[in-house]
Amino acid sequence: MLTYSFDDRGTEALYEYLYRQIKDDISNNKLKPKEKLPSKRALAKHLDISTITVENAYSQLMAEGYIYSVPRSGFYVSDISADDYKFSDTSQYKPRTYKKDAKDNNNQETILDSPKYFMDFVNNNTAPDNFPFTRWAKLIRETMAEERDNLMIKSPSLGVYQLRCAIVNYLYQFRGMDVEPEQVVVGAGTEYLYGLIIQLLGHESKYAVEDPGYQKIARIYKANKVKCVHIPLDNEGINIDALEESAADVVHITPSHHFPTGIVTPISRRHELLTWALKSEKRYIIEDDYDSEFRLLGKPIPALQSIDMSNKVIYINTFSKSLTSTIRISYMVLPKPLIERYNKELSFYACTVSNFEQYTLAKFLERGYLEIHINRMRNYYRKTRDILLENIMKRKDDKKINIMEEDAGLHFLLQVDTKISDKQLVMRAAENGINVSCLSQYYYDRSNIKDHILVINYSGVDTEYIEEGVDRLFEVF
Amino acid sequence: MLTYSFDDRGTEALYEYLYRQIKDDISNNKLKPKEKLPSKRALAKHLDISTITVENAYSQLMAEGYIYSVPRSGFYVSDISADDYKFSDTSQYKPRTYKKDAKDNNNQETILDSPKYFMDFVNNNTAPDNFPFTRWAKLIRETMAEERDNLMIKSPSLGVYQLRCAIVNYLYQFRGMDVEPEQVVVGAGTEYLYGLIIQLLGHESKYAVEDPGYQKIARIYKANKVKCVHIPLDNEGINIDALEESAADVVHITPSHHFPTGIVTPISRRHELLTWALKSEKRYIIEDDYDSEFRLLGKPIPALQSIDMSNKVIYINTFSKSLTSTIRISYMVLPKPLIERYNKELSFYACTVSNFEQYTLAKFLERGYLEIHINRMRNYYRKTRDILLENIMKRKDDKKINIMEEDAGLHFLLQVDTKISDKQLVMRAAENGINVSCLSQYYYDRSNIKDHILVINYSGVDTEYIEEGVDRLFEVF
Repeated sequence: MLTYSFDDRGTEALYEYLYRQIKDDISNNKLKPKEKLPSKRALAKHLDISTITVENAYSQLMAEGYIYSVPRSGFYVSDISADDYKFSDTSQYKPRTYKKDAKDNNNQETILDSPKYFMDFVNNNTAPDNFPFTRWAKLIRETMAEERDNLMIKSPSLGVYQLRCAIVNYLYQFRGMDVEPEQVVVGAGTEYLYGLIIQLLGHESKYAVEDPGYQKIARIYKANKVKCVHIPLDNEGINIDALEESAADVVHITPSHHFPTGIVTPISRRHELLTWALKSEKRYIIEDDYDSEFRLLGKPIPALQSIDMSNKVIYINTFSKSLTSTIRISYMVLPKPLIERYNKELSFYACTVSNFEQYTLAKFLERGYLEIHINRMRNYYRKTRDILLENIMKRKDDKKINIMEEDAGLHFLLQVDTKISDKQLVMRAAENGINVSCLSQYYYDRSNIKDHILVINYSGVDTEYIEEGVDRLFEVF
Repeated sequence: MLTYSFDDRGTEALYEYLYRQIKDDISNNKLKPKEKLPSKRALAKHLDISTITVENAYSQLMAEGYIYSVPRSGFYVSDISADDYKFSDTSQYKPRTYKKDAKDNNNQETILDSPKYFMDFVNNNTAPDNFPFTRWAKLIRETMAEERDNLMIKSPSLGVYQLRCAIVNYLYQFRGMDVEPEQVVVGAGTEYLYGLIIQLLGHESKYAVEDPGYQKIARIYKANKVKCVHIPLDNEGINIDALEESAADVVHITPSHHFPTGIVTPISRRHELLTWALKSEKRYIIEDDYDSEFRLLGKPIPALQSIDMSNKVIYINTFSKSLTSTIRISYMVLPKPLIERYNKELSFYACTVSNFEQYTLAKFLERGYLEIHINRMRNYYRKTRDILLENIMKRKDDKKINIMEEDAGLHFLLQVDTKISDKQLVMRAAENGINVSCLSQYYYDRSNIKDHILVINYSGVDTEYIEEGVDRLFEVF
């Protein structure tokens, strides 16, 4: 049977490594066309890995045409020796392999990107029933009928003015922020906006991120080859002394609701942060306000931007959480001196969001649909959380558990009493069909790690399956 | 005046203590709605604390809605007897000034970004009649009805698989390129993709651009703080000796149709370029194929990518020209070793294009609608060009003129005999309502400049007004 050593795998995912090994063997003709592959279960047993891992590897090989499946028989190696294709002779254009049923293909690749779990406490795809399809479809129709001319006019670099006005009104009503449309920059996702911020504040600046924190942020700074330091948190958010010592110029924080600890930075620390920023002209604070809409208890925390009188805060937010992450629209609010710099140095960039979606979203905001949608979703998430907590509390007698930060919205922390390591915990949960992450995974400085605290993101969880999901999760401990 | 003792403050910060005292007085109705608060300076003096402390306290009270400010008057106590600052209570928010008629707003800012001309030979907004609104609207409807589940699933970093397949098929049929969907990266505009390329090939690499050339490309390299050199062209495209001398690692070229000179790089120079690239592992060629679809005479020039056997060419293209620039969808095809690097180092980035538009475009391509649309537009552009040339040729007797590169598509060069400088020429044309640019504006090295050559981009020109447009233009010389 196929035998692969996983010793050289490095940080690659198991299924990805396995997929590459098999693909290489097919390319090198070690595995011959029409040769039968072992069943998923048999290969899993043989290699001492989970069946899901093999399934993911096979799915990817299928998607790419390296293997094919015969129902009720198994998987076979494709014949990839077909002729090379030569340029300009159109007679030999073979029909492409990329005309399979689109749905199938996409599902297969989706599996590669995120393996299919019974319950997913990490990713937050929006359930189709939770996206306002009817209203959105209606507004797209309206936009295409009424805005024909505007749709063809190049958007200003900052974004369509109508959308920026709608965003400003929204921020005023829901975040108490008094800003002007001329300060708003619309972009295709916060990750893109981080890149713009680096170009705006300078590649020579040193950027500080939260530790623990959302790891992608540091990856983006590093991919852009700017200096990036990880600053530890205390109970009130980012530690000011450590920040000061780090000699960072720019600090990237989530004061309204830190991910994943849930810490809300109190007003005192906010003022300390603003004071820190005032000490040098180069210093700035990036306030990442990614899910402030979903605080489930009490009044929303005012944005740090709204108490900044010194033009030191760049406010950044997204419609990924409030609408869906698959429409790529985010925005930032720049202090006036920075927007001047943007207009001078970066406004040659075309706006990255399609006019069609900018106008549609503008209408969605203008008519108050987002407010209605968010209220509906808050109720939905509260219900999901309550059912989840109820099911977890049922096990309180068997297991020592502790629930933290359950009101901040969209995720909470679950401390469990177990002897197995966090790594094993996550792996065993995956084998049980549960995707879950541990707080420890979000730390850069491994010496500060607290073990056995699960991060339970419930935004993508279907209430119907919660009972079984919790069962499967608790089997792990 | 407000008097507070700071004796009981404990370890609390001054401003925080002050903020709490005032807040309590407002809550207890000791301070009445609409009552005026002392000025920051007066209160500071009175309490013997710094103005900044009072400012911080007031800011926080403002942010939380306890007080409000009246410009040029001062701070007043809010009426909080109604509801607290509640998420869903919009009644107490004053209407923003940003609710003017949306169309007006947009026009205002559009005018700001690009003044309205009688005829525009520089920008290329798509005329609304030239966008396939009916088909696009139909496909959006279909997408929203049929792809509900897929629309909510996060797109792979490279883009939705279905769209990448459609692009690969399109490239195969129309550019003779044999690539795989796994090599395609979809992104929100070529400018965004340039940024990804820099992250992929390295910030320490030196990037070469064409001189003359499309100036934005150099601006993007410079905004990303990478070394960028300008290499002169000869009659066959970028000069290889100059490129070699420059010690550049990466060269960014438009071999199919250089903008603005219209030069098509012949096969011999293409092979020289590939040979240049082979000399070092770090060397790469970025082939920017931005308008190859619109060559009006003869068969399309094969892509450089299609004759590259050494994984040295990054192919980049966009739907801006073939569909509309206001839908932000571009893509690049990476050589396999680079796509591996992308998957390892950059696939943490979310795709920047909305799923809604990715699926819609995939269907548009799959059904051959783009081909139909391009054929229609080629006819339309040919007609526009012919009317334009006819109107220009009428003046041949009065003025010495020379037309060049009229078959490459979407723009040609018009050499005129005049005494005024290019700068004056552009200015006077603008005064006559004509937006036009000169070849000289696209040069970095001013010593190579050829004067009095106009770049006539006719993709956004309305045939009905051509006669008057040409009249207005010729009045300038």
